[in-house]
Amino acid sequence: MDFGVTPFDGVPLPPRVTICEVGPRDGPQNESAVLPVAVKAEFVERLVDAGHTVVETTSFVHPKWVPQLADADDLIRAITIAPGIRYPVLVPNMAGLERALDLGVRDIAVFGSVTETFSRRNLNRSVDESLEMFAPVVARAREAGIRVRGYLSMCFGDPWKREVPVRRVLDVATRMRALGCTELSIGGTIGVATPGRVEAVLATLITAAIPVDSIAVHFHDTYGEALANTLTALRKGIVIIDASAGGLGGCPYAGSATGNLATEDLLWQLYGLGIETGVDLQKMVDTSVWLAGHLGRPSPSRTVTALAG
Amino acid sequence: MDFGVTPFDGVPLPPRVTICEVGPRDGPQNESAVLPVAVKAEFVERLVDAGHTVVETTSFVHPKWVPQLADADDLIRAITIAPGIRYPVLVPNMAGLERALDLGVRDIAVFGSVTETFSRRNLNRSVDESLEMFAPVVARAREAGIRVRGYLSMCFGDPWKREVPVRRVLDVATRMRALGCTELSIGGTIGVATPGRVEAVLATLITAAIPVDSIAVHFHDTYGEALANTLTALRKGIVIIDASAGGLGGCPYAGSATGNLATEDLLWQLYGLGIETGVDLQKMVDTSVWLAGHLGRPSPSRTVTALAG
Repeated sequence: MDFGVTPFDGVPLPPRVTICEVGPRDGPQNESAVLPVAVKAEFVERLVDAGHTVVETTSFVHPKWVPQLADADDLIRAITIAPGIRYPVLVPNMAGLERALDLGVRDIAVFGSVTETFSRRNLNRSVDESLEMFAPVVARAREAGIRVRGYLSMCFGDPWKREVPVRRVLDVATRMRALGCTELSIGGTIGVATPGRVEAVLATLITAAIPVDSIAVHFHDTYGEALANTLTALRKGIVIIDASAGGLGGCPYAGSATGNLATEDLLWQLYGLGIETGVDLQKMVDTSVWLAGHLGRPSPSRTVTALAG
Repeated sequence: MDFGVTPFDGVPLPPRVTICEVGPRDGPQNESAVLPVAVKAEFVERLVDAGHTVVETTSFVHPKWVPQLADADDLIRAITIAPGIRYPVLVPNMAGLERALDLGVRDIAVFGSVTETFSRRNLNRSVDESLEMFAPVVARAREAGIRVRGYLSMCFGDPWKREVPVRRVLDVATRMRALGCTELSIGGTIGVATPGRVEAVLATLITAAIPVDSIAVHFHDTYGEALANTLTALRKGIVIIDASAGGLGGCPYAGSATGNLATEDLLWQLYGLGIETGVDLQKMVDTSVWLAGHLGRPSPSRTVTALAG
């Protein structure tokens, strides 16, 4: 359906955005089912075939913490790497980075937090300690000419501390950039973000001269807010949006089955707004239905549910 | 949680909105289970207890068409009417209006369409014929000093005709107002609306001097767009928003289990934006969980799922 491109209240929206597809990394680590490497590789290849240019593929964490991703090396080797496509991986520390470099990985991400409680629960260290841990990782990666995304989680509230001051987000963002991160992903993580808060955080980052095209947003649909928040981010000129095929994955602390914004729901909105992504909605729906068969549960995505027929 | 009121990109949002709670009317007519009158009455009373001031209670359609609502008269008699609360009912024709008037109903709604195909499928007559049918109903109701809401369905696209020109919406809106409708509900109906389209339709109506405080919006969450569309409507100054407890009901032609915007999801967004509604979120969640027990299926609302625990 073509509902036309509409000038938006005088504010031009970006004509094109890049979706950072996080399904392969964020999905399996929150599922009890362990998918075979061949299925994971096919998943990544299907996402690229659908038109994605950035597919966060896996995480080089220690298998003790996330056994579902113990096959990270095998997965990277199993994927048919397509030219011009980025396959970032999460690395928590130098050991992870060395594994990634040995495999020829050209894009990494580090996963930080703006709140102390989540930092301790997720990384077992304070925010300061986590940034100290990331420093040599980012430096080494940058020396190797590799792009580094820095995740900032819990930017809009966390389940323990609740309100998170905007200056905390700005502080961690500034420090991550100082370490050498080339892109920041501003994360909702537990889905409590609402549009006014999103606007305030993004306005603060942009006013502080963090380049708008180096800021990604990462929203969770736990309370159904992901697309209203995305719309708010688009109005601020954000051009990188994280999403997960079929809404896979999310935060285990959020207390709900619904986590990441589903790529399909995002595509519906962007298509309606006339914003280009290069990603084919029907191929994404087909992929999510296919993967749901392997996971043994239906996708929570509204759009997948509506279009799966 | 208090995430604070944030000035929104220079555009002030309304400090308070009225939710038109449509669950009792729109829910049962789309469920296979027929709820006992006592359960329906308790549902309405719970919604009022949660803080709702407008609860669309039932529909005086012929039982041949919607057998689930054959008990409309009994339900109106069963409810303990609270002072200051509005209990609108849907009436399709003069027979329905006379039933409503006999029962002391003080708020009615007529249900029209802006597209011919949906008009024929839903009302078995053309748009012109439906407006002719409504004319004496609205006139008689206005004579009796009763408020009349006019529903305009399929304002943002329909499953058959797809694109719906904005001028069609304006045309039917203008004619419904000329009949005497005191409020118009601009409906998505199948959930295909996206924010640019919503803005274009609302801007057209407001520019045509339809008072902004007489315009309600009615969005469906079929593709996850309801809250992004709601945000867009708030930015246009809309202060009446339709929602359904737990996301009950929707359009049988939409081809998905997900229909109306859930009141709980709406409340989460409005609370985060600092917009008053007078409706208690936890009481709504409790009510939707209670009703889900009677319906035998869980609520599709994201917020109910997250907060039901």
